[in-house]
Amino acid sequence: MGDIDTQKMASLDLDTNSSDDFVDPWNVHTSSATGIDYAKLIVRFGSSKIDDELVARIEKVTGKPAHHFLKRGIFFSHREMNRILDLYEQKKPFYLYTGRGPSSEAMHLGHLVPFVFTKWLQETFDVPLVIQMTDDEKYLWKDLTIEEVQRVALENVKDIISLGFDIEKTFIFCDFTYIGQCPDFYRTIIKIQKHVTFNQVKGIFGFGESDNIGKIAFPAVQAAPSFSSAFPQIFNGKKDLPCLIPCAIDQDPYFRMTRDVAPRLNLQKPALIHSVFFPALQGATSKMSASDPNSSIFLTDTPSQIKNKVNKYAFSGGQATVEEHKEKGGNCDVDVSFQYLRFFLEDDEKLEKIRKDYSSGELLTGFLKKELITVLQEIVQQIQERRKTVTDEIAHQFMAPRKLKFDY
Amino acid sequence: MGDIDTQKMASLDLDTNSSDDFVDPWNVHTSSATGIDYAKLIVRFGSSKIDDELVARIEKVTGKPAHHFLKRGIFFSHREMNRILDLYEQKKPFYLYTGRGPSSEAMHLGHLVPFVFTKWLQETFDVPLVIQMTDDEKYLWKDLTIEEVQRVALENVKDIISLGFDIEKTFIFCDFTYIGQCPDFYRTIIKIQKHVTFNQVKGIFGFGESDNIGKIAFPAVQAAPSFSSAFPQIFNGKKDLPCLIPCAIDQDPYFRMTRDVAPRLNLQKPALIHSVFFPALQGATSKMSASDPNSSIFLTDTPSQIKNKVNKYAFSGGQATVEEHKEKGGNCDVDVSFQYLRFFLEDDEKLEKIRKDYSSGELLTGFLKKELITVLQEIVQQIQERRKTVTDEIAHQFMAPRKLKFDY
Repeated sequence: MGDIDTQKMASLDLDTNSSDDFVDPWNVHTSSATGIDYAKLIVRFGSSKIDDELVARIEKVTGKPAHHFLKRGIFFSHREMNRILDLYEQKKPFYLYTGRGPSSEAMHLGHLVPFVFTKWLQETFDVPLVIQMTDDEKYLWKDLTIEEVQRVALENVKDIISLGFDIEKTFIFCDFTYIGQCPDFYRTIIKIQKHVTFNQVKGIFGFGESDNIGKIAFPAVQAAPSFSSAFPQIFNGKKDLPCLIPCAIDQDPYFRMTRDVAPRLNLQKPALIHSVFFPALQGATSKMSASDPNSSIFLTDTPSQIKNKVNKYAFSGGQATVEEHKEKGGNCDVDVSFQYLRFFLEDDEKLEKIRKDYSSGELLTGFLKKELITVLQEIVQQIQERRKTVTDEIAHQFMAPRKLKFDY
Repeated sequence: MGDIDTQKMASLDLDTNSSDDFVDPWNVHTSSATGIDYAKLIVRFGSSKIDDELVARIEKVTGKPAHHFLKRGIFFSHREMNRILDLYEQKKPFYLYTGRGPSSEAMHLGHLVPFVFTKWLQETFDVPLVIQMTDDEKYLWKDLTIEEVQRVALENVKDIISLGFDIEKTFIFCDFTYIGQCPDFYRTIIKIQKHVTFNQVKGIFGFGESDNIGKIAFPAVQAAPSFSSAFPQIFNGKKDLPCLIPCAIDQDPYFRMTRDVAPRLNLQKPALIHSVFFPALQGATSKMSASDPNSSIFLTDTPSQIKNKVNKYAFSGGQATVEEHKEKGGNCDVDVSFQYLRFFLEDDEKLEKIRKDYSSGELLTGFLKKELITVLQEIVQQIQERRKTVTDEIAHQFMAPRKLKFDY
């Protein structure tokens, strides 16, 4: 299966996280201007690289062009994607699981990445999807009331719905609510908790003795949706439906733990497909942060806010003077406008031309910013328009436990 | 309020549990033939003794004679019983909470003690009662499947109902089921978990790093029913109804933790009333054990099994020969037949006469055994007859979340 066990991982993590890059579900740090070294991260986490061969196989079995996130290395790592493709070829069912910790009211562009890709996976493979909102996690980690995290979670659910998920094939749930709707969710959580020790979560997540016991037990809550037994209504009682989890690489520790536990529960390990982090406007040394309004473009930003933020804050890979830039060329690896276009400009040819012309010095940063502003204004506006139509009622329809449309 | 805080308790526990007596929710050991030193336990746990004055006050405010468990020191310790009596005098509401870990199919006499007393409290104070079956605890601690612990829990629920609880005032719930019926139960659990650290449960319960994370988080599950917010349907939305918990003293660590957390959640501390342990037939050096059929009288035992077990195994406080016995007299403190009569022979005068005549040597152990056999055969037969009438349907009526009959 290509991945090494959690026990080994834990010690590797501790070793390597003491060097330059640090990645866990709560913190991502790097001192490198080009960001995290993802090739090293694959080795450290024990996952597999998404290479040209895998991208070609995805195109072959689905008969559809690969998403640009795949072709451009934005989804760069996986665990057992080939097993999922085998299933698809054999016309056997699987489901998608992704999620979000609803910590801030407004979602930013970085939050979109896994959801945009999940939507593509859902449409391309025609499979059901469950989306977990870990309102309980946010309550345990932050100085917020349960009422507050539940309110924010509902707002985030509406944002996610605005991306255009198919209501017939998508179940969105908030932990605090769903646990009181489905005893099988709690049963699955407790089964996982029985098979994970404090030592293991200490090794994987760095928990200490002064952490609250809710945090210590929580990884099982995020692990549980990897098993279809947590969703008897959604999956029509099917207990061991294979699962594919698209997520940012920082969430991998949860699922390394899950994959470690699965065989002991006589259940299938979830497969994974991992994205890189979306850089802050200020550059690739950290993730975007919802707590710094100038580090991110939010889904609630107006066209002029987008324009101003990009113009004012987007870190430039250009040279100090126009003359020097024309002579030496720009650095696409650190230029945030180029990096954002890599995520959101779908036209491959156009992106490649920009890359060439910026690197050669023909294009200035100002041109890239202008392109980016147009692209982002359009994306954000589209989402904002759909968002207006997402009522409480529609949100509650997505969150109602019910059989999803799919042949099991 | 008379009790010291958990932090202090924890270190006291560790100190004192290294001496002769050891008491925690999973183990009770003593090397003394007369059993645990309960006076010392009160000091160690920081609770208060139930003295004659308190028993008199209970009789005064209720206008009813005290239960023989109170008069005979079987319920011997408390936390804030006077606050509960104040409430009763002021005609203000409170509720009772007790529970059971459904580990064995057949309950034994020792298991009856808290329930018999709880029933008396319910009738005497005319208050609602919730009974928790911790099937999740048993799954986490034992090598059993969830299906098995749920099956055993239902059998135990029927045993408990057979003691004659009022269906209009009693809600019995199994954790695995109730958590999926009421989101407020999980919310209350997570609130508690947020305010308790690994260090605290390590100090209170002795958990270690190799314990599974379900065990580490579990104390919050047993703590949660101490707060009426976990039961919006049962208590008609009343969120901070005071709670009185009758239980054996070994369960006190859970509620020391609960009382420690309560003010941080802006909720009332539960009051407690504690019983001694019921001795094994073989003597007071340990609790009865459901795993050793000859250490206990079970609710499923036939009259002849009761007779044989008492005659064969009940430890005698008598002397080696009849002559020596007549001369020196019997020792009521270690004689198991006398101890059992202390629990189950309601007639105070008769018990006192037996005590005097056995101590003086006039009565032999055989007489006490004969008395005891009659008393136990009658109690067990009564329960068995009621048990036959307790259908699955009745059990599910007791377990249906619904408003209990009470003026709130």
